[in-house]
Amino acid sequence: MSKLTHMDETGRARMVDVSGKADTVREAVATGFIRMGAETLKLALAGEGRKGDVRAVAEIAGVMAAKQTSSLIPMCHPLAISKVEVRVEPGVGGLTVTARVKTTGPTGVEMEALTAVTMACLTLYDMLKAAEKGMVIEAVRLVSKTGGKSGDWSAG
Amino acid sequence: MSKLTHMDETGRARMVDVSGKADTVREAVATGFIRMGAETLKLALAGEGRKGDVRAVAEIAGVMAAKQTSSLIPMCHPLAISKVEVRVEPGVGGLTVTARVKTTGPTGVEMEALTAVTMACLTLYDMLKAAEKGMVIEAVRLVSKTGGKSGDWSAG
Amino acid sequence: MSKLTHMDETGRARMVDVSGKADTVREAVATGFIRMGAETLKLALAGEGRKGDVRAVAEIAGVMAAKQTSSLIPMCHPLAISKVEVRVEPGVGGLTVTARVKTTGPTGVEMEALTAVTMACLTLYDMLKAAEKGMVIEAVRLVSKTGGKSGDWSAG
Amino acid sequence: MSKLTHMDETGRARMVDVSGKADTVREAVATGFIRMGAETLKLALAGEGRKGDVRAVAEIAGVMAAKQTSSLIPMCHPLAISKVEVRVEPGVGGLTVTARVKTTGPTGVEMEALTAVTMACLTLYDMLKAAEKGMVIEAVRLVSKTGGKSGDWSAG
Amino acid sequence: MSKLTHMDETGRARMVDVSGKADTVREAVATGFIRMGAETLKLALAGEGRKGDVRAVAEIAGVMAAKQTSSLIPMCHPLAISKVEVRVEPGVGGLTVTARVKTTGPTGVEMEALTAVTMACLTLYDMLKAAEKGMVIEAVRLVSKTGGKSGDWSAG
Amino acid sequence: MSKLTHMDETGRARMVDVSGKADTVREAVATGFIRMGAETLKLALAGEGRKGDVRAVAEIAGVMAAKQTSSLIPMCHPLAISKVEVRVEPGVGGLTVTARVKTTGPTGVEMEALTAVTMACLTLYDMLKAAEKGMVIEAVRLVSKTGGKSGDWSAG
Repeated sequence: MSKLTHMDETGRARMVDVSGKADTVREAVATGFIRMGAETLKLALAGEGRKGDVRAVAEIAGVMAAKQTSSLIPMCHPLAISKVEVRVEPGVGGLTVTARVKTTGPTGVEMEALTAVTMACLTLYDMLKAAEKGMVIEAVRLVSKTGGKSGDWSAG
Repeated sequence: MSKLTHMDETGRARMVDVSGKADTVREAVATGFIRMGAETLKLALAGEGRKGDVRAVAEIAGVMAAKQTSSLIPMCHPLAISKVEVRVEPGVGGLTVTARVKTTGPTGVEMEALTAVTMACLTLYDMLKAAEKGMVIEAVRLVSKTGGKSGDWSAG
Repeated sequence: MSKLTHMDETGRARMVDVSGKADTVREAVATGFIRMGAETLKLALAGEGRKGDVRAVAEIAGVMAAKQTSSLIPMCHPLAISKVEVRVEPGVGGLTVTARVKTTGPTGVEMEALTAVTMACLTLYDMLKAAEKGMVIEAVRLVSKTGGKSGDWSAG
Repeated sequence: MSKLTHMDETGRARMVDVSGKADTVREAVATGFIRMGAETLKLALAGEGRKGDVRAVAEIAGVMAAKQTSSLIPMCHPLAISKVEVRVEPGVGGLTVTARVKTTGPTGVEMEALTAVTMACLTLYDMLKAAEKGMVIEAVRLVSKTGGKSGDWSAG
Repeated sequence: MSKLTHMDETGRARMVDVSGKADTVREAVATGFIRMGAETLKLALAGEGRKGDVRAVAEIAGVMAAKQTSSLIPMCHPLAISKVEVRVEPGVGGLTVTARVKTTGPTGVEMEALTAVTMACLTLYDMLKAAEKGMVIEAVRLVSKTGGKSGDWSAG
Repeated sequence: MSKLTHMDETGRARMVDVSGKADTVREAVATGFIRMGAETLKLALAGEGRKGDVRAVAEIAGVMAAKQTSSLIPMCHPLAISKVEVRVEPGVGGLTVTARVKTTGPTGVEMEALTAVTMACLTLYDMLKAAEKGMVIEAVRLVSKTGGKSGDWSAG
């Protein structure tokens, strides 16, 4: 089980030691999608041009959730997040959520970006569920990470 | 925009008034899936029979996240959750997460069940990402809800 | 010191016992004002008609803060909040914030309404401080409370 | 809308990128006032010389709230706070709250100082509201900030 | 493993279902002790008669921690706490902490009382550790619980 | 009262200023013990070899609680925790909990290690209380601290 850094050699969970790692600028981008019917999508976009529309609520929820990541994911390190941007954009058959998170720290912000995306998706679900309970959250994934010793990575 | 209860007539967000709704027993079930390569799945299941394996960490994270739902989703009501059970089971090409949440209250626990599922999936991602960064979270959806005035619902 | 229910007879703080009080519908309304220069007010209102404007961010922050009241104010009881609505409206020389909070419970939601107002005001400050650091938050007060044994109250 | 750094060019909220800013020692001082009747003020000060008096509860609440600032204000960065001091002092017709907050980081602690002040004021309200519901929180403002690229600032 | 209600029949953790249990008034009392040298104890008590002494900080921390119990203990139910009182009293060779917690709900407040006691003890440690790092927290236990179907219990 | 750094010269609480202290690697180790009857200990260890056993739940709770330390202990500084490991091991007449916490920062992690230990102990109590309510938490103490200006320390 040596490949799983959050596990020790006996298979018990730990928050891995990052005290020997250098503080560098790191960025992660993640995306997700919430699939919905045409009527619901129309409702979601109808707020456009108004105050407090559905997309704005989800974007703000995503930013705030990114800051709670280390409270939610047991072995995740608390990090000094230096930027979060969450955007909800219309797509075919639903809404696409993208989160960009940066830190200057000893470990990456992949989990922060993924948390922002999922909580923004769940907020969209909450705001729209009166119209459609069958919406599905799909394709939540890391798009890229940059910075840090292990080098850059991007989804194929 | 009258179909969206978390929006008022001018399109601004609010936490809808549930003070006139009766306290009844309500349950919600949600599921999700995290897709991964065969090697990663093998690693995830290798903890089986050991203390603190990957699945146990995710199940506990899901239970704890359910209790944070109203802090994370802006217009979500705080609720007296009376049960949470999160289970991670092996599936074809990944792990399936199922959450069952109950309350006795004036509104349902759909968001709590969905939050438990997504945070368990993200915890699996975190525990396994040293092995595979390209894992994808898919098919996060409400399976069923029971109780409350609006009646029972289940995914078709 | 018998008039201060959060103090015992020796002057030490406690969370007063409400277990003997009946669950009734209670509502509280609070307001506050953030004073700013004409240029800043113009900037604050310029988001009108756009997504995610300054006022929407503050309204959402106020709703979310109301749910954190009992974590922030030491002797405050946790309550099942059944409604929160926060509105930021333009006034003369600044923005007026109004919060309406309801619960069905054994004690009132005055602190929740006041917390929503102050955190919405602080969010406005945060969003606008790049333009003007000298803004002042004023006139934060309870407007009215209804429900509960002690009867209704409204500011004179 | 280019003056508002928490807004992008399309008017949507974001947590602005501070990763390029240097870690320097920064301090902010904020004050506020809670106006009350003479009888209430006498009660508030009566705890003087006792354990756990009203002012001590408010000072502690202010310190603890400062640490929650980035959880409460949507676009606020989490910061490594290096000092918080909150003082409640008697004034003419009420109590004055002053908060001093320091950090060594890439952005200032104005919001932390203002959050400490407002939550200490709200705690005073909570502790004293059995005696007087009509108290008003006034004159919450930033007094000064030092450190950081934008230079020192103090209220005129 | 049927005796452990937070475990299912396969040994996996869950938050047990309390939706079938009646809301009744329940109370729990817990105590603990922090052992310290005579010099440290003298310092701890020296604040007596002053504002914000060590004991007051610990009592307030205990009350606030009781409200966080269900966020900290994984399988613990969120509860509407109706009273918390934490008292720190001088004892032989240290300080005794006692917490009394009440709820009207479907499950007891033993964990809330124990959490209040331990966090008050840890706060005493934090406030006094500059004087003595070797203090020991001892004898943290449930003293009594009343209310609920399983009947009253008190330590022998 | 000059020996108590969290108190100012007038005996009022403050979060002491650490902005002048250097960031260095610091580690703290703490332990505690939960005493229980032989039958309960047997139950606690029965989960061995299964998923989600009692010890794993407590270890995870301890790691997560360490990250909440500065929210729980009023005058405690927020810190960038770089490692947490919590282990529950069988002892004579109960279970021993050990926590190891590291940071690279301006102040130590003693409180984080002690918080991890106590919350793991309380979680063990919660998971096992259906079998025995009379369990006692004992001997919670700091074992050692290393790093920082004040030098290394270990319990005699």
